[in-house]
Amino acid sequence: MNKKKIFNDPVYGFITIPCEIIFDLIEHPWFQRLRRIRQLGLTHLVYPGAIHTRLHHALGALHLMTQAVDTIRSKGHEISDKEAEAVYCAILLHDIGHAPFSHALEHTLIHSGSHEQISLAFMELLNEQFEGKLSTCIDIFTNRYPKQFLHQLVSSQLDMDRVDYLNRDSFYTGVLEGTIGAQRIIKMLEVHNDELVIEEKGIYSIEKFIIARRLMYWQVYLHKTVLGAEQLLIRIIQRAKELCNSGCKLFASPALQHFLHHEFNLKNGARDRKTLELFARIDDYDIYNSVKVWADESDIVLSRLCSGLINRRLYKIRISKEPFDVQAVEEKKKECVSRFGIKEEDAGYFAFTGTISNNAYDPKDEQIRIIYKDGTLKELTEVSDQMDIAILSRPVQKHFLCYLEELA
Amino acid sequence: MNKKKIFNDPVYGFITIPCEIIFDLIEHPWFQRLRRIRQLGLTHLVYPGAIHTRLHHALGALHLMTQAVDTIRSKGHEISDKEAEAVYCAILLHDIGHAPFSHALEHTLIHSGSHEQISLAFMELLNEQFEGKLSTCIDIFTNRYPKQFLHQLVSSQLDMDRVDYLNRDSFYTGVLEGTIGAQRIIKMLEVHNDELVIEEKGIYSIEKFIIARRLMYWQVYLHKTVLGAEQLLIRIIQRAKELCNSGCKLFASPALQHFLHHEFNLKNGARDRKTLELFARIDDYDIYNSVKVWADESDIVLSRLCSGLINRRLYKIRISKEPFDVQAVEEKKKECVSRFGIKEEDAGYFAFTGTISNNAYDPKDEQIRIIYKDGTLKELTEVSDQMDIAILSRPVQKHFLCYLEELA
Amino acid sequence: MNKKKIFNDPVYGFITIPCEIIFDLIEHPWFQRLRRIRQLGLTHLVYPGAIHTRLHHALGALHLMTQAVDTIRSKGHEISDKEAEAVYCAILLHDIGHAPFSHALEHTLIHSGSHEQISLAFMELLNEQFEGKLSTCIDIFTNRYPKQFLHQLVSSQLDMDRVDYLNRDSFYTGVLEGTIGAQRIIKMLEVHNDELVIEEKGIYSIEKFIIARRLMYWQVYLHKTVLGAEQLLIRIIQRAKELCNSGCKLFASPALQHFLHHEFNLKNGARDRKTLELFARIDDYDIYNSVKVWADESDIVLSRLCSGLINRRLYKIRISKEPFDVQAVEEKKKECVSRFGIKEEDAGYFAFTGTISNNAYDPKDEQIRIIYKDGTLKELTEVSDQMDIAILSRPVQKHFLCYLEELA
Amino acid sequence: MNKKKIFNDPVYGFITIPCEIIFDLIEHPWFQRLRRIRQLGLTHLVYPGAIHTRLHHALGALHLMTQAVDTIRSKGHEISDKEAEAVYCAILLHDIGHAPFSHALEHTLIHSGSHEQISLAFMELLNEQFEGKLSTCIDIFTNRYPKQFLHQLVSSQLDMDRVDYLNRDSFYTGVLEGTIGAQRIIKMLEVHNDELVIEEKGIYSIEKFIIARRLMYWQVYLHKTVLGAEQLLIRIIQRAKELCNSGCKLFASPALQHFLHHEFNLKNGARDRKTLELFARIDDYDIYNSVKVWADESDIVLSRLCSGLINRRLYKIRISKEPFDVQAVEEKKKECVSRFGIKEEDAGYFAFTGTISNNAYDPKDEQIRIIYKDGTLKELTEVSDQMDIAILSRPVQKHFLCYLEELA
Repeated sequence: MNKKKIFNDPVYGFITIPCEIIFDLIEHPWFQRLRRIRQLGLTHLVYPGAIHTRLHHALGALHLMTQAVDTIRSKGHEISDKEAEAVYCAILLHDIGHAPFSHALEHTLIHSGSHEQISLAFMELLNEQFEGKLSTCIDIFTNRYPKQFLHQLVSSQLDMDRVDYLNRDSFYTGVLEGTIGAQRIIKMLEVHNDELVIEEKGIYSIEKFIIARRLMYWQVYLHKTVLGAEQLLIRIIQRAKELCNSGCKLFASPALQHFLHHEFNLKNGARDRKTLELFARIDDYDIYNSVKVWADESDIVLSRLCSGLINRRLYKIRISKEPFDVQAVEEKKKECVSRFGIKEEDAGYFAFTGTISNNAYDPKDEQIRIIYKDGTLKELTEVSDQMDIAILSRPVQKHFLCYLEELA
Repeated sequence: MNKKKIFNDPVYGFITIPCEIIFDLIEHPWFQRLRRIRQLGLTHLVYPGAIHTRLHHALGALHLMTQAVDTIRSKGHEISDKEAEAVYCAILLHDIGHAPFSHALEHTLIHSGSHEQISLAFMELLNEQFEGKLSTCIDIFTNRYPKQFLHQLVSSQLDMDRVDYLNRDSFYTGVLEGTIGAQRIIKMLEVHNDELVIEEKGIYSIEKFIIARRLMYWQVYLHKTVLGAEQLLIRIIQRAKELCNSGCKLFASPALQHFLHHEFNLKNGARDRKTLELFARIDDYDIYNSVKVWADESDIVLSRLCSGLINRRLYKIRISKEPFDVQAVEEKKKECVSRFGIKEEDAGYFAFTGTISNNAYDPKDEQIRIIYKDGTLKELTEVSDQMDIAILSRPVQKHFLCYLEELA
Repeated sequence: MNKKKIFNDPVYGFITIPCEIIFDLIEHPWFQRLRRIRQLGLTHLVYPGAIHTRLHHALGALHLMTQAVDTIRSKGHEISDKEAEAVYCAILLHDIGHAPFSHALEHTLIHSGSHEQISLAFMELLNEQFEGKLSTCIDIFTNRYPKQFLHQLVSSQLDMDRVDYLNRDSFYTGVLEGTIGAQRIIKMLEVHNDELVIEEKGIYSIEKFIIARRLMYWQVYLHKTVLGAEQLLIRIIQRAKELCNSGCKLFASPALQHFLHHEFNLKNGARDRKTLELFARIDDYDIYNSVKVWADESDIVLSRLCSGLINRRLYKIRISKEPFDVQAVEEKKKECVSRFGIKEEDAGYFAFTGTISNNAYDPKDEQIRIIYKDGTLKELTEVSDQMDIAILSRPVQKHFLCYLEELA
Repeated sequence: MNKKKIFNDPVYGFITIPCEIIFDLIEHPWFQRLRRIRQLGLTHLVYPGAIHTRLHHALGALHLMTQAVDTIRSKGHEISDKEAEAVYCAILLHDIGHAPFSHALEHTLIHSGSHEQISLAFMELLNEQFEGKLSTCIDIFTNRYPKQFLHQLVSSQLDMDRVDYLNRDSFYTGVLEGTIGAQRIIKMLEVHNDELVIEEKGIYSIEKFIIARRLMYWQVYLHKTVLGAEQLLIRIIQRAKELCNSGCKLFASPALQHFLHHEFNLKNGARDRKTLELFARIDDYDIYNSVKVWADESDIVLSRLCSGLINRRLYKIRISKEPFDVQAVEEKKKECVSRFGIKEEDAGYFAFTGTISNNAYDPKDEQIRIIYKDGTLKELTEVSDQMDIAILSRPVQKHFLCYLEELA
């Protein structure tokens, strides 16, 4: 069978599968599941084009990785075929543990463990199925492989994951401000003392990358309507779990039933094949189909939240630099109780506060460093002489207040 | 409330809502449902980018319609504001009656009536809700309005529906061969004796449009893997209905249960609000969630078909210009019976034949006509002196044979 | 004659001529001359795609202006047809006074007066030819027209000139970092108290615009190789004029001969038709053809500079934040004298220093102001809470040292 | 010196220089001259964006060639590094012998010999300068190298020259109908028995390529206004040569003077270095600068033609499938004589006839052949079952009549 397949990709034109194991991993049902998980959760409610999937993102990041490997090799650094294959597997599988609706439900369906940890658990199971062929991939993913720069290509402030998602999310949302010169960034990659660095003449491209990232945060990832929609979905799942735990029977696929009734705890249980296999069966479709049915449930809280999501009557949301006055929130809650006839303890489903934060680049994290022709290295914020990238590096925290529009 | 909203669109950049009623129709739950129906059904199994929705297509066709109205007005033809509003509503709602997975299930969930007829039924219900404001829209849609060219903008061989979907499907699949110069085609529109025609200098653009349409048919719409996937989905629904009718209980949302157990007959029933409202509740999510669960059903036929779709083990398919030998198909069926231990009458689920056909342009249908500077009109196939467009007009019919890969 | 012409434009797709006078101005030989002046002078020596012309830029800015007028009208502000026509003429003609090679020779062939002043002189002559039809256009261009925002659309920190050139220069150089969302910026335009302002939700687009402008300065407009090439061309013209003034006869078209032998002084003379008509005859072709011939001149200075430009042996250039040491420059000059056998007074042609500066946005100039939903106005640098745009506003000055590569 | 330079290219993003000799050839003044020759001659008078140069086309074709070599190697066919370098040089230099204004003056300034023959003459001179390093390149270019498919990559009905120019011309004119999927065509290349063929699944892309080529012919390359402009330029040069031969002195650079006074005959003379070096000095700038000056010449024929070109008053042109009536043409000529007071023998400058022809694909020439999975080969016109590509293969001849607009 010819496994040198080519995929069409609206963003890059074509994506060529570099080796057989990549083809086999793509065919695996656990990877195919990513077709059914939207990259940007509910963002399409604001940007109707933002319907691309985790599968497409994973293929895109793979494509960039093949280019990055070519570039680094062409500059005289050795990457063996086995290492290349491993780093391709690592980027392909980096998101395989994502929950339905991507980040939106990351900490709602799962209580302990990020999607990266679940991705790792899946990689380990796959490694058994592929008879150890993913061992190097796992070492790179967990940063235990000697050539550290390979890990940085998979996970760092300048990894192929970010380069693809900024590009792809910008393309599909139509928010052109987020467009980055992916090709150029990759051509500027260098390796110095086993560290991934950027050539001097790539500095403007990197600045642009940081700025684009920040713009995407405020225009897309933390867009207030998107935030309102995601909070709604989170509250829906919380309420559904609460009802299930108190003995209600709700419409849900068998796999979703499991997660509504049981905590998913990576530490003691998820690594056993059975729970992970159940997890691998749920995707956006289970959630959304249930939400539609739950809009007719007798529980007022659940039905109001669900019909809001289906019919695009999302939470109203206010954003502020200062925390919201506790008293004001309490009054909104009281209004809920009298208006909807719900219990006081449930009012928090209809009015609540929270915080969001973002920093586009964190110089205290793994730094982005520039290499000069004479071999000296400088950290990005030191170098940018016209604009203080450091300012972009200060984390920005904002407070939000969500409430049903009937309370406005 | 500001209803002059702007949508980002990856294809056209921005789409501006031209009037209030359009905004209100977009907000309507029946229109919002189109967010959950993929424009190209299962095509994403071949072209992973092809995940755009009917909602986005409807907005795109609306956008082109506003440009077409501007162009035609600028050439001295009157279109009143009321007529413009009506033709915008008509194009916005032209697909509102689509079944889940668009064309794939068009004649499986519904037995009598195309999606256009169901769209009309929805428009009539909406007209009640909007207190008669859609009457002109409905007249245009059904071609009972005096200015016939308005109907042609909505439905003809050169309507805004086709111009948008060719463009959009080409964009999202990444099949650049299908790209058409939508802007240029629209600038070439003219009206002559109440008929939509094309200016002489637009002839190459129209030829390109016909050719692109044909290429998209063979490369995308009738791609053999896509065909194999859609046949699989059709057989799944048929089997599920068969099982339901014989008393099985299958996992499905309440609305989908209804359509598994009852025929949807537009003539005596669908027009009653209740059935249409149930229809308006089902979308890709109900179908797909059930398919995933049914992969574990005890019925071998249903579970094998469903697990095939989920895990991308689709029907094998052979295409031929000649009909397939009946005897050969019968033998494949016999093989099924012995291999899977199924009944003879069920073997047709695992091996069967059918036909597909396409003509990119049909001069016997409503013709595309060119207007010359001296006012003479000529039909497209007469005009094209270098290439015989007539050849493209001959319908092409092909035969296919589908079977499970285990039988190969 | 049909004057509703459409131009193809690689950047925007199509450009429609909005009215008859625009068509007639485009046909005028003075405007056609802009076909022969490259928008970015010698930038194509670094970015080979950067060969677009002033004519194309003027058409592009016109296109954006028609969109801006539509947007502002749609928000309820009156712009009469006469005013629209005038503002279209003003943007079309804003660069008609450009010298060959655009900015490179702006202050070399012409001693007193910027290209805007010469543009104005041409507009006044055209106004005679068009029997006063350009009077309102001229009033807008010179900011003597009551509706001040019309002038701001033509000339301000957010005018259609800048929006087009950033977009167009980014497109043709291939420097994607400079791409701006022109469509979105225009949709965000508002008018408040006769002042052009930006809607609140357009703030990220404006930030992006300022940042893109800065990136284009450092990556393109002030790219050191481009700077070296433009300095070379300036020195060539200076030397040629010097030689002509001392009686040499050099190859040049009659019109160019005039400007080599006479000063072009707008104050006393340029406004007379004859000198302007001569100016309207010279373009990149006169200059470049002469430069090629002069490479064989007996004057060592002229021939060395010209052969350098033709064969792409440009000045070497060093950039520094600090001024260069006077002594070091003097020594380079001395080296020239001995090496090339030229006079001491001519050594400045082969080695010299200068300064460049840029600020992407100057809040002390006409400010960019944001309008909030409640009607309050804020200046851009106050508003940008994540990133201090003020930093971008500090003018950056740099010093450069140019010298022939033989001296390196 | 780092010769691994990267060029920005608006069409492909980036072009990487694959080896040192390519860098050195690009730096050569004879190659740099291609910066000053527009790819599409006077086409920019109709499509203002069409100002791209032969230099950019040569770099683009080089870029595609590096991709083609990668593809063919990845399919298991050997191309040594030396062969790759040679085929890169061949495509880079294939147009180095172009006359100013590309094809427009190909047979006017030069009487015997096509641009390919002059390119070869330059390659041979360069081979001396590069000490024999271009010998394999020349063998490939002249099809004397054993691996014939390398020649086909440089020159055939599917060479990288065509693939780039269709793409690039479509991009810069804005005629989207000409866009082809260059990336996909290249990925479909195969080699079979030393012949360049196309994989079966690439057939639609090739059909699209042929169709796009035909559309570009009629919409761009043979556009009637472009034809009128090019005929004007040809007549200008013919008249200038006639006047020079009869002793007139016309303004022209020394190199252009040579070609106005002497025939350029490749057979006896051009190969001597001196004439070729003179040829290497003339480009669009010499021609256009002279044309501008000649608009003031006393010879009525020359001055009328030149002022027509400068001020865009081109020949009127009529196109017909039938030859024009001789008598009618004679009468137009007589009208010229009386109207302009010119000699009868000169009337042919103001009114004349000619023919143009085009066939998009010629199956009698080197065929495009498709390879099937079972190894069988079929010629393209046999294969295309839906549309008879054969029709596109019939050469189309048309007649034209040109005359000054004053005669209309």
